[in-house]
Amino acid sequence: MEKNRYVKQPSENQVEGRNAVLEAYRSGRTIDKLYILKENKDGPLQTILREAKKQETVVNFVSRERLAQLSETGRHQGVIAVAAACGYASVEEILERAKSKGEAPFIMLLDGIEDPHNLGAIIRTANLAGAHGVIIPKHRAVGLTAAVARASAGAVNYTPVARVANLASTMEKLKKEGLWFACAAMDGAAVYRQDLRGPIGLVIGSEGSGVSRMVREKCDFTVAIPMRGDIDSLNASVAAGVLAFEIVRQRENR
Amino acid sequence: MEKNRYVKQPSENQVEGRNAVLEAYRSGRTIDKLYILKENKDGPLQTILREAKKQETVVNFVSRERLAQLSETGRHQGVIAVAAACGYASVEEILERAKSKGEAPFIMLLDGIEDPHNLGAIIRTANLAGAHGVIIPKHRAVGLTAAVARASAGAVNYTPVARVANLASTMEKLKKEGLWFACAAMDGAAVYRQDLRGPIGLVIGSEGSGVSRMVREKCDFTVAIPMRGDIDSLNASVAAGVLAFEIVRQRENR
Repeated sequence: MEKNRYVKQPSENQVEGRNAVLEAYRSGRTIDKLYILKENKDGPLQTILREAKKQETVVNFVSRERLAQLSETGRHQGVIAVAAACGYASVEEILERAKSKGEAPFIMLLDGIEDPHNLGAIIRTANLAGAHGVIIPKHRAVGLTAAVARASAGAVNYTPVARVANLASTMEKLKKEGLWFACAAMDGAAVYRQDLRGPIGLVIGSEGSGVSRMVREKCDFTVAIPMRGDIDSLNASVAAGVLAFEIVRQRENR
Repeated sequence: MEKNRYVKQPSENQVEGRNAVLEAYRSGRTIDKLYILKENKDGPLQTILREAKKQETVVNFVSRERLAQLSETGRHQGVIAVAAACGYASVEEILERAKSKGEAPFIMLLDGIEDPHNLGAIIRTANLAGAHGVIIPKHRAVGLTAAVARASAGAVNYTPVARVANLASTMEKLKKEGLWFACAAMDGAAVYRQDLRGPIGLVIGSEGSGVSRMVREKCDFTVAIPMRGDIDSLNASVAAGVLAFEIVRQRENR
């Protein structure tokens, strides 16, 4: 995570046109999403698709109309790439970070956060709560866009964010490293009565539908914030903050 | 707070033109801000200014260019009003709410929150943490706009929000009602070591500069969230959430 990767202009992250997209791949930039003209098999687009496959980019095959809509330059030549505002880390790097600090791992896993403000605020929270990293899924979730980097107030430069194809199978692997998973839920035992001092993965659900069934089934227990009001739920980044700092509170009182 | 006041279209809250603005005032709508052509003394605009004074609206005298910029219809006739998406409560109503529930008052005071997402998320938090109301200042802060109502996920329909000219003098009055004020700060004793179970006003500062000196001087003590990371501060709505639910935790363990 280099400091100079913090990009301020959202449009700096949209790359349009065949040569520009291929160049972005070859220069090692992380491409979050690729929009490519459907039903086109010509050579240059095939080369780009091969790069996309190699890097496991999420590829969207779209119509010419959709591409024109997305294009900022009007010269997309059938392909638009959205690059991440900063690099992703690996899950191993996150674990390594905990180890090198001599701390029990504390990782935040986000199951489908879609709002850039929320993702940014959660990475900011992860940084200040001393979490060793954040894990997000590749699909149906916002990536490290420029808006997320801004909302994180610079935290993306310090707190590693890993992006995985399948959150549930990543949790399986992390269980072998000794992590326990706490699922943020509306029901269940109040978080204040749970012991959160060991190696922990805190799982936060999406804004609309919470934690998905597949991911929830991998969790070891649920942590609920006691609700006294009239509406359904807290903002996702606020809920993540309340739970993360309950972990901090318990660890400090150890 | 009527449920049907929850307005979905932001532009429904912008009222343009002399008759429309005057009508908005006379129908009892709450006008958050008035933009009026500077150096214009004609009759209709004077009538509107009198209504504005009566209702203590924040009035901005602006140039013709600025009005044109703000105008959505192009027919502003020298005046644009921004109406609140829902009504404001009084500070007395908030106290009354605590009394009728037989609870020690718990009020959140926001010293200059400017981002609609943050204000909405904080009202949402106030609702679910069982706070009896939220107090915001009239100046240099966002009001109950449609964006705030949306971000509150409906909480503006349940949790009263009062808007006052001077936060510091409102705090003076509330002290006579037995409230103690806790100032969210970066330094000071960790919130977990403070007793927050009595009648309390939780004061949250603005996104950029925290709690202002005038307001801070009225606070009885500071509450700090222990920070372990590299960046400066949490998102304002996340900080408000962590502190509000620490009050909940302490009150539940009473």
